[in-house]
Amino acid sequence: MTKHGRFITLEGGEGVGKSTNMQFVVAWLEAQGIEVVATREPGGTPRAEAIRQLLLDPAPEEWLHTDAELLLMFAARAQHLAEKILPALARGAWVVCDRFTDATYAYQGGGRGIPVERIAALEAFVQRGLAPDLTLLLDMPHDAAKQRLESRLRDQHTQRDRFEKEQADFFQAVRNAYLARAEQAPERFAVINAHQSLTEVQSDICDTLARRVALWD
Amino acid sequence: MTKHGRFITLEGGEGVGKSTNMQFVVAWLEAQGIEVVATREPGGTPRAEAIRQLLLDPAPEEWLHTDAELLLMFAARAQHLAEKILPALARGAWVVCDRFTDATYAYQGGGRGIPVERIAALEAFVQRGLAPDLTLLLDMPHDAAKQRLESRLRDQHTQRDRFEKEQADFFQAVRNAYLARAEQAPERFAVINAHQSLTEVQSDICDTLARRVALWD
Repeated sequence: MTKHGRFITLEGGEGVGKSTNMQFVVAWLEAQGIEVVATREPGGTPRAEAIRQLLLDPAPEEWLHTDAELLLMFAARAQHLAEKILPALARGAWVVCDRFTDATYAYQGGGRGIPVERIAALEAFVQRGLAPDLTLLLDMPHDAAKQRLESRLRDQHTQRDRFEKEQADFFQAVRNAYLARAEQAPERFAVINAHQSLTEVQSDICDTLARRVALWD
Repeated sequence: MTKHGRFITLEGGEGVGKSTNMQFVVAWLEAQGIEVVATREPGGTPRAEAIRQLLLDPAPEEWLHTDAELLLMFAARAQHLAEKILPALARGAWVVCDRFTDATYAYQGGGRGIPVERIAALEAFVQRGLAPDLTLLLDMPHDAAKQRLESRLRDQHTQRDRFEKEQADFFQAVRNAYLARAEQAPERFAVINAHQSLTEVQSDICDTLARRVALWD
Protein backbone atom coordinates (compact mmCIF):
# COMPACT_ATOMS: atom_id res chain seq x y z
CA MET A 1 0.00 0.00 0.00
CA THR A 2 1.45 3.39 -0.91
CA LYS A 3 1.82 5.79 1.98
CA HIS A 4 1.09 9.46 1.37
CA GLY A 5 0.10 10.85 4.77
CA ARG A 6 2.43 11.21 7.74
CA PHE A 7 2.44 8.96 10.77
CA ILE A 8 3.08 10.57 14.18
CA THR A 9 3.13 8.67 17.46
CA LEU A 10 3.01 9.87 21.08
CA GLU A 11 4.85 7.79 23.63
CA GLY A 12 5.56 7.85 27.34
CA GLY A 13 4.85 6.06 30.60
CA GLU A 14 1.78 6.38 32.83
CA GLY A 15 1.04 9.87 34.14
CA VAL A 16 3.19 11.89 31.72
CA GLY A 17 0.21 13.72 30.19
CA LYS A 18 -0.21 11.82 26.94
CA SER A 19 -3.97 12.27 26.57
CA THR A 20 -3.91 16.06 27.04
CA ASN A 21 -1.01 16.52 24.67
CA MET A 22 -2.50 14.11 22.14
CA GLN A 23 -5.45 16.51 21.77
CA PHE A 24 -3.02 19.41 21.44
CA VAL A 25 -1.06 17.72 18.62
CA VAL A 26 -4.25 16.89 16.72
CA ALA A 27 -5.56 20.47 17.10
CA TRP A 28 -2.23 21.93 15.97
CA LEU A 29 -2.16 19.80 12.81
CA GLU A 30 -5.81 20.47 12.01
CA ALA A 31 -5.11 24.20 12.32
CA GLN A 32 -2.64 23.72 9.43
CA GLY A 33 -5.49 22.34 7.31
CA ILE A 34 -4.29 18.73 7.61
CA GLU A 35 -6.82 15.86 7.76
CA VAL A 36 -5.96 14.01 10.96
CA VAL A 37 -7.00 10.54 12.12
CA ALA A 38 -6.46 10.33 15.89
CA THR A 39 -6.21 6.83 17.29
CA ARG A 40 -4.61 4.76 20.04
CA GLU A 41 -2.90 1.45 20.80
CA PRO A 42 -3.62 -1.15 21.81
CA GLY A 43 -6.99 -0.64 20.15
CA GLY A 44 -8.21 1.79 17.53
CA THR A 45 -10.83 -0.49 15.92
CA PRO A 46 -13.63 -2.58 17.49
CA ARG A 47 -11.73 -5.89 17.22
CA ALA A 48 -8.46 -4.34 18.36
CA GLU A 49 -10.24 -2.69 21.30
CA ALA A 50 -11.61 -6.13 22.24
CA ILE A 51 -8.02 -7.40 22.30
CA ARG A 52 -7.09 -4.32 24.40
CA GLN A 53 -9.66 -5.41 26.99
CA LEU A 54 -7.95 -8.79 27.32
CA LEU A 55 -4.58 -7.06 27.74
CA LEU A 56 -5.63 -4.52 30.36
CA ASP A 57 -8.07 -6.72 32.32
CA PRO A 58 -6.77 -6.56 35.88
CA ALA A 59 -8.33 -9.94 36.88
CA PRO A 60 -5.53 -11.26 39.11
CA GLU A 61 -6.37 -14.97 38.87
CA GLU A 62 -5.93 -14.95 35.12
CA TRP A 63 -2.22 -14.65 34.71
CA LEU A 64 -1.17 -13.78 31.16
CA HIS A 65 2.08 -15.26 29.82
CA THR A 66 4.57 -12.68 28.43
CA ASP A 67 4.65 -14.34 24.99
CA ALA A 68 0.84 -14.29 24.84
CA GLU A 69 0.82 -10.63 25.90
CA LEU A 70 3.32 -9.77 23.16
CA LEU A 71 1.39 -11.68 20.48
CA LEU A 72 -1.88 -10.05 21.53
CA MET A 73 -0.26 -6.61 21.25
CA PHE A 74 0.84 -7.38 17.71
CA ALA A 75 -2.52 -8.99 16.81
CA ALA A 76 -4.24 -5.75 17.83
CA ARG A 77 -1.61 -3.80 15.87
CA ALA A 78 -2.08 -5.90 12.70
CA GLN A 79 -5.82 -5.29 12.86
CA HIS A 80 -5.38 -1.57 13.56
CA LEU A 81 -2.89 -1.14 10.71
CA ALA A 82 -5.00 -3.02 8.16
CA GLU A 83 -8.31 -1.50 9.09
CA LYS A 84 -7.44 2.08 10.02
CA ILE A 85 -3.84 3.32 9.87
CA LEU A 86 -2.78 2.12 6.40
CA PRO A 87 -6.03 3.15 4.63
CA ALA A 88 -5.81 6.62 6.25
CA LEU A 89 -2.17 7.12 5.22
CA ALA A 90 -2.95 5.83 1.72
CA ARG A 91 -5.62 8.47 1.15
CA GLY A 92 -3.25 11.18 2.38
CA ALA A 93 -4.54 11.71 5.92
CA TRP A 94 -2.09 12.08 8.78
CA VAL A 95 -2.36 9.57 11.59
CA VAL A 96 -1.62 10.53 15.18
CA CYS A 97 -1.44 7.50 17.44
CA ASP A 98 -1.36 7.38 21.24
CA ARG A 99 1.33 4.70 21.67
CA PHE A 100 2.67 2.32 19.03
CA THR A 101 5.52 -0.20 18.72
CA ASP A 102 7.97 1.81 20.85
CA ALA A 103 5.58 1.15 23.73
CA THR A 104 5.96 -2.59 23.09
CA TYR A 105 9.75 -2.25 23.33
CA ALA A 106 9.33 -0.18 26.51
CA TYR A 107 6.65 -2.22 28.32
CA GLN A 108 7.06 -5.78 27.07
CA GLY A 109 10.80 -5.39 26.42
CA GLY A 110 12.03 -3.06 29.19
CA GLY A 111 9.24 -3.79 31.67
CA ARG A 112 8.69 -7.53 31.19
CA GLY A 113 12.17 -8.43 30.00
CA ILE A 114 11.25 -9.94 26.62
CA PRO A 115 14.44 -9.89 24.48
CA VAL A 116 14.54 -7.08 21.90
CA GLU A 117 15.11 -9.59 19.04
CA ARG A 118 11.81 -11.33 19.77
CA ILE A 119 9.95 -8.02 19.62
CA ALA A 120 11.83 -7.02 16.46
CA ALA A 121 10.81 -10.33 14.81
CA LEU A 122 7.11 -9.63 15.35
CA GLU A 123 7.54 -5.96 14.39
CA ALA A 124 8.97 -7.03 11.02
CA PHE A 125 6.25 -9.68 10.65
CA VAL A 126 3.39 -7.24 11.21
CA GLN A 127 4.70 -3.88 9.99
CA ARG A 128 6.77 -5.01 6.99
CA GLY A 129 9.00 -1.94 7.35
CA LEU A 130 6.39 0.65 8.32
CA ALA A 131 7.58 3.02 11.07
CA PRO A 132 6.34 6.38 12.37
CA ASP A 133 7.69 9.53 10.69
CA LEU A 134 7.90 11.28 14.05
CA THR A 135 7.64 10.04 17.62
CA LEU A 136 7.08 12.50 20.45
CA LEU A 137 8.36 10.94 23.67
CA LEU A 138 6.92 12.64 26.75
CA ASP A 139 9.55 12.06 29.40
CA MET A 140 9.40 12.69 33.13
CA PRO A 141 11.12 11.20 36.23
CA HIS A 142 9.18 8.24 37.59
CA ASP A 143 8.31 9.87 40.96
CA ALA A 144 6.63 12.84 39.33
CA ALA A 145 4.68 10.64 36.89
CA LYS A 146 3.57 8.39 39.72
CA GLN A 147 2.13 11.33 41.68
CA ARG A 148 0.19 12.47 38.63
CA LEU A 149 -1.12 8.96 37.90
CA GLU A 150 -2.25 8.51 41.52
CA SER A 151 -4.05 11.82 41.65
CA ARG A 152 -5.79 10.96 38.34
CA LEU A 153 -6.91 7.53 39.61
CA ARG A 154 -8.19 9.19 42.84
CA ASP A 155 -10.09 11.86 40.93
CA GLN A 156 -11.66 9.40 38.50
CA HIS A 157 -12.28 6.63 41.07
CA THR A 158 -10.99 4.13 38.51
CA GLN A 159 -9.35 0.80 39.16
CA ARG A 160 -5.76 0.34 38.02
CA ASP A 161 -5.37 -1.85 34.93
CA ARG A 162 -2.82 -4.66 34.68
CA PHE A 163 -0.04 -2.27 33.68
CA GLU A 164 -0.85 0.51 36.13
CA LYS A 165 -0.59 -2.04 38.94
CA GLU A 166 3.10 -2.63 38.27
CA GLN A 167 5.78 -1.39 40.68
CA ALA A 168 8.42 1.36 40.61
CA ASP A 169 11.20 -0.77 39.10
CA PHE A 170 8.89 -1.76 36.23
CA PHE A 171 8.21 1.89 35.39
CA GLN A 172 11.88 2.80 35.73
CA ALA A 173 12.70 0.03 33.24
CA VAL A 174 9.96 1.30 30.90
CA ARG A 175 11.37 4.84 31.01
CA ASN A 176 14.93 3.62 30.43
CA ALA A 177 13.82 1.53 27.45
CA TYR A 178 11.99 4.50 25.94
CA LEU A 179 15.06 6.74 26.34
CA ALA A 180 17.29 4.06 24.82
CA ARG A 181 14.94 3.80 21.80
CA ALA A 182 15.07 7.59 21.39
CA GLU A 183 18.86 7.57 21.49
CA GLN A 184 19.01 4.89 18.80
CA ALA A 185 16.75 6.81 16.38
CA PRO A 186 17.25 10.55 17.00
CA GLU A 187 16.05 11.41 13.47
CA ARG A 188 12.64 9.93 14.30
CA PHE A 189 12.29 10.76 18.01
CA ALA A 190 11.77 14.09 19.75
CA VAL A 191 12.12 13.80 23.53
CA ILE A 192 9.83 16.33 25.22
CA ASN A 193 10.50 17.23 28.86
CA ALA A 194 7.05 16.59 30.35
CA HIS A 195 8.13 17.70 33.82
CA GLN A 196 7.29 21.36 33.14
CA SER A 197 4.10 23.39 33.15
CA LEU A 198 1.57 22.39 30.49
CA THR A 199 2.22 25.67 28.65
CA GLU A 200 5.94 24.91 28.48
CA VAL A 201 5.36 21.31 27.37
CA GLN A 202 3.02 22.42 24.61
CA SER A 203 5.37 25.17 23.52
CA ASP A 204 8.07 22.50 23.08
CA ILE A 205 5.66 20.27 21.15
CA CYS A 206 4.72 23.23 18.97
CA ASP A 207 8.35 24.01 18.14
CA THR A 208 9.05 20.36 17.35
CA LEU A 209 6.04 19.99 15.06
CA ALA A 210 6.77 23.25 13.22
CA ARG A 211 10.39 22.25 12.67
CA ARG A 212 9.65 18.68 11.52
CA VAL A 213 6.66 19.49 9.34
CA ALA A 214 8.70 22.20 7.56
CA LEU A 215 11.30 19.54 6.67
CA TRP A 216 8.66 17.27 5.14
CA ASP A 217 7.10 19.89 2.86
CA MET B 1 11.09 -27.29 30.52
CA THR B 2 11.77 -31.01 30.33
CA LYS B 3 9.06 -33.02 28.64
CA HIS B 4 8.18 -36.43 30.08
CA GLY B 5 4.59 -37.06 29.03
CA ARG B 6 3.41 -37.62 25.47
CA PHE B 7 1.59 -35.05 23.37
CA ILE B 8 -1.17 -36.31 21.05
CA THR B 9 -3.28 -34.06 18.81
CA LEU B 10 -6.52 -34.69 16.94
CA GLU B 11 -6.99 -32.83 13.68
CA GLY B 12 -9.56 -32.58 10.94
CA GLY B 13 -12.09 -30.23 9.33
CA GLU B 14 -15.62 -29.46 10.49
CA GLY B 15 -17.98 -32.42 10.76
CA VAL B 16 -15.40 -35.25 10.73
CA GLY B 17 -16.29 -36.42 14.27
CA LYS B 18 -13.43 -34.95 16.26
CA SER B 19 -15.34 -34.46 19.54
CA THR B 20 -16.66 -38.03 19.72
CA ASN B 21 -13.32 -39.55 18.85
CA MET B 22 -11.49 -37.20 21.22
CA GLN B 23 -13.45 -38.79 24.10
CA PHE B 24 -12.61 -42.21 22.75
CA VAL B 25 -8.85 -41.49 22.64
CA VAL B 26 -8.88 -40.13 26.19
CA ALA B 27 -10.83 -43.16 27.48
CA TRP B 28 -8.49 -45.57 25.68
CA LEU B 29 -5.38 -43.97 27.23
CA GLU B 30 -6.93 -43.79 30.69
CA ALA B 31 -7.75 -47.50 30.42
CA GLN B 32 -3.97 -48.06 30.11
CA GLY B 33 -3.51 -46.28 33.45
CA ILE B 34 -2.14 -43.10 31.85
CA GLU B 35 -2.91 -39.69 33.42
CA VAL B 36 -4.49 -37.71 30.58
CA VAL B 37 -5.08 -33.97 30.28
CA ALA B 38 -7.72 -33.39 27.59
CA THR B 39 -7.79 -29.91 26.11
CA ARG B 40 -8.55 -27.99 22.93
CA GLU B 41 -7.36 -25.16 20.70
CA PRO B 42 -7.89 -22.34 20.33
CA GLY B 43 -8.55 -22.18 24.07
CA GLY B 44 -7.78 -24.56 26.92
CA THR B 45 -7.36 -21.91 29.66
CA PRO B 46 -9.61 -18.99 30.67
CA ARG B 47 -7.49 -16.34 28.88
CA ALA B 48 -6.99 -18.51 25.82
CA GLU B 49 -10.73 -19.23 25.71
CA ALA B 50 -11.34 -15.47 25.78
CA ILE B 51 -9.09 -15.17 22.73
CA ARG B 52 -11.04 -18.06 21.15
CA GLN B 53 -14.22 -16.02 21.52
CA LEU B 54 -12.66 -13.19 19.51
CA LEU B 55 -11.59 -15.65 16.82
CA LEU B 56 -14.91 -17.45 16.43
CA ASP B 57 -17.23 -14.45 16.94
CA PRO B 58 -19.39 -14.46 13.80
CA ALA B 59 -20.18 -10.69 14.02
CA PRO B 60 -20.07 -9.86 10.31
CA GLU B 61 -19.37 -6.12 10.62
CA GLU B 62 -16.14 -6.75 12.47
CA TRP B 63 -13.87 -8.08 9.79
CA LEU B 64 -10.71 -9.66 11.18
CA HIS B 65 -7.49 -9.25 9.21
CA THR B 66 -5.69 -12.54 8.38
CA ASP B 67 -2.47 -11.43 10.14
CA ALA B 68 -4.46 -10.52 13.27
CA GLU B 69 -6.26 -13.88 13.14
CA LEU B 70 -2.94 -15.71 12.88
CA LEU B 71 -1.38 -13.74 15.76
CA LEU B 72 -4.43 -14.32 17.95
CA MET B 73 -4.19 -18.07 17.28
CA PHE B 74 -0.56 -18.08 18.40
CA ALA B 75 -1.28 -15.80 21.39
CA ALA B 76 -3.88 -18.31 22.59
CA ARG B 77 -1.38 -21.12 21.92
CA ALA B 78 1.42 -19.41 23.88
CA GLN B 79 -0.91 -19.01 26.84
CA HIS B 80 -2.19 -22.59 26.56
CA LEU B 81 1.34 -24.02 26.33
CA ALA B 82 2.70 -22.03 29.28
CA GLU B 83 -0.26 -22.51 31.56
CA LYS B 84 -1.45 -26.02 30.79
CA ILE B 85 0.33 -28.16 28.17
CA LEU B 86 3.98 -27.75 29.23
CA PRO B 87 3.34 -28.14 32.99
CA ALA B 88 1.26 -31.30 32.31
CA LEU B 89 3.95 -32.85 30.09
CA ALA B 90 6.64 -31.89 32.62
CA ARG B 91 4.92 -33.79 35.41
CA GLY B 92 4.54 -36.85 33.15
CA ALA B 93 0.89 -36.54 32.15
CA TRP B 94 -0.13 -37.15 28.54
CA VAL B 95 -1.85 -34.28 26.78
CA VAL B 96 -4.56 -34.93 24.18
CA CYS B 97 -5.45 -31.75 22.32
CA ASP B 98 -8.40 -31.15 20.00
CA ARG B 99 -6.57 -29.22 17.25
CA PHE B 100 -3.11 -27.65 17.43
CA THR B 101 -0.66 -26.01 15.01
CA ASP B 102 -1.52 -28.29 12.07
CA ALA B 103 -4.96 -26.65 12.18
CA THR B 104 -3.27 -23.25 11.77
CA TYR B 105 -1.47 -24.52 8.65
CA ALA B 106 -4.76 -25.97 7.37
CA TYR B 107 -7.15 -23.09 8.16
CA GLN B 108 -5.00 -19.95 8.11
CA GLY B 109 -2.54 -21.38 5.56
CA GLY B 110 -4.66 -23.54 3.25
CA GLY B 111 -7.97 -21.79 3.92
CA ARG B 112 -6.93 -18.13 4.15
CA GLY B 113 -3.84 -18.34 1.96
CA ILE B 114 -1.27 -17.11 4.51
CA PRO B 115 2.17 -18.26 3.24
CA VAL B 116 3.54 -21.32 5.06
CA GLU B 117 6.76 -19.46 5.96
CA ARG B 118 4.83 -16.84 7.94
CA ILE B 119 3.09 -19.54 9.94
CA ALA B 120 6.37 -21.40 10.45
CA ALA B 121 7.97 -18.20 11.79
CA LEU B 122 5.32 -17.84 14.51
CA GLU B 123 5.38 -21.59 15.23
CA ALA B 124 9.12 -21.38 15.94
CA PHE B 125 8.60 -18.20 17.98
CA VAL B 126 5.96 -19.74 20.24
CA GLN B 127 6.78 -23.45 20.35
CA ARG B 128 10.60 -23.32 20.35
CA GLY B 129 10.74 -26.76 18.77
CA LEU B 130 7.86 -28.45 20.60
CA ALA B 131 5.70 -30.65 18.32
CA PRO B 132 3.14 -33.39 18.98
CA ASP B 133 4.41 -36.97 19.30
CA LEU B 134 1.39 -38.24 17.38
CA THR B 135 -1.28 -36.50 15.31
CA LEU B 136 -4.47 -38.35 14.40
CA LEU B 137 -5.92 -36.74 11.28
CA LEU B 138 -9.60 -37.59 10.81
CA ASP B 139 -10.12 -37.35 7.08
CA MET B 140 -13.33 -37.41 5.06
CA PRO B 141 -14.47 -36.01 1.69
CA HIS B 142 -15.84 -32.48 2.04
CA ASP B 143 -19.41 -33.36 0.95
CA ALA B 144 -19.82 -35.99 3.64
CA ALA B 145 -18.37 -33.73 6.35
CA LYS B 146 -20.65 -30.90 5.27
CA GLN B 147 -23.76 -33.08 5.64
CA ARG B 148 -22.69 -34.08 9.15
CA LEU B 149 -21.92 -30.49 10.16
CA GLU B 150 -25.30 -29.29 8.88
CA SER B 151 -27.24 -31.96 10.68
CA ARG B 152 -25.33 -31.15 13.91
CA LEU B 153 -26.07 -27.41 13.61
CA ARG B 154 -29.74 -28.21 12.96
CA ASP B 155 -29.98 -30.56 15.94
CA GLN B 156 -28.26 -28.14 18.32
CA HIS B 157 -29.93 -24.98 16.96
CA THR B 158 -26.53 -23.26 17.08
CA GLN B 159 -25.31 -20.39 14.95
CA ARG B 160 -22.32 -21.04 12.68
CA ASP B 161 -19.07 -19.46 13.89
CA ARG B 162 -16.75 -17.47 11.59
CA PHE B 163 -15.05 -20.62 10.31
CA GLU B 164 -18.17 -22.74 9.88
CA LYS B 165 -19.60 -19.98 7.67
CA GLU B 166 -16.89 -20.46 5.05
CA GLN B 167 -17.65 -21.99 1.65
CA ALA B 168 -16.85 -25.32 -0.04
CA ASP B 169 -13.57 -24.19 -1.65
CA PHE B 170 -12.31 -23.04 1.76
CA PHE B 171 -12.95 -26.47 3.27
CA GLN B 172 -11.45 -28.22 0.27
CA ALA B 173 -8.31 -26.13 0.75
CA VAL B 174 -8.29 -26.95 4.48
CA ARG B 175 -8.51 -30.68 3.74
CA ASN B 176 -5.78 -30.52 1.09
CA ALA B 177 -3.48 -28.63 3.47
CA TYR B 178 -4.06 -31.22 6.21
CA LEU B 179 -3.27 -34.09 3.82
CA ALA B 180 -0.15 -32.30 2.59
CA ARG B 181 1.04 -31.86 6.21
CA ALA B 182 0.46 -35.57 6.85
CA GLU B 183 2.45 -36.51 3.76
CA GLN B 184 5.38 -34.35 4.90
CA ALA B 185 5.56 -35.92 8.36
CA PRO B 186 4.38 -39.57 8.09
CA GLU B 187 6.29 -40.54 11.26
CA ARG B 188 4.14 -38.14 13.28
CA PHE B 189 0.79 -38.35 11.47
CA ALA B 190 -1.75 -41.17 11.29
CA VAL B 191 -4.48 -40.47 8.75
CA ILE B 192 -7.74 -42.07 9.89
CA ASN B 193 -10.50 -42.62 7.33
CA ALA B 194 -13.42 -40.92 9.10
CA HIS B 195 -15.87 -41.78 6.33
CA GLN B 196 -16.74 -45.16 7.87
CA SER B 197 -19.03 -46.27 10.67
CA LEU B 198 -18.04 -45.02 14.12
CA THR B 199 -17.07 -48.58 15.12
CA GLU B 200 -14.71 -48.84 12.18
CA VAL B 201 -13.20 -45.40 12.82
CA GLN B 202 -12.58 -46.24 16.48
CA SER B 203 -11.14 -49.60 15.60
CA ASP B 204 -8.62 -47.80 13.35
CA ILE B 205 -7.83 -45.31 16.14
CA CYS B 206 -7.38 -48.19 18.56
CA ASP B 207 -4.93 -50.00 16.26
CA THR B 208 -2.96 -46.80 15.71
CA LEU B 209 -2.71 -45.97 19.40
CA ALA B 210 -1.68 -49.52 20.35
CA ARG B 211 1.00 -49.59 17.65
CA ARG B 212 2.43 -46.12 18.48
CA VAL B 213 2.31 -46.43 22.25
CA ALA B 214 4.16 -49.76 22.02
CA LEU B 215 6.97 -48.01 20.12
CA TRP B 216 7.33 -45.37 22.85
CA ASP B 217 7.63 -47.80 25.76
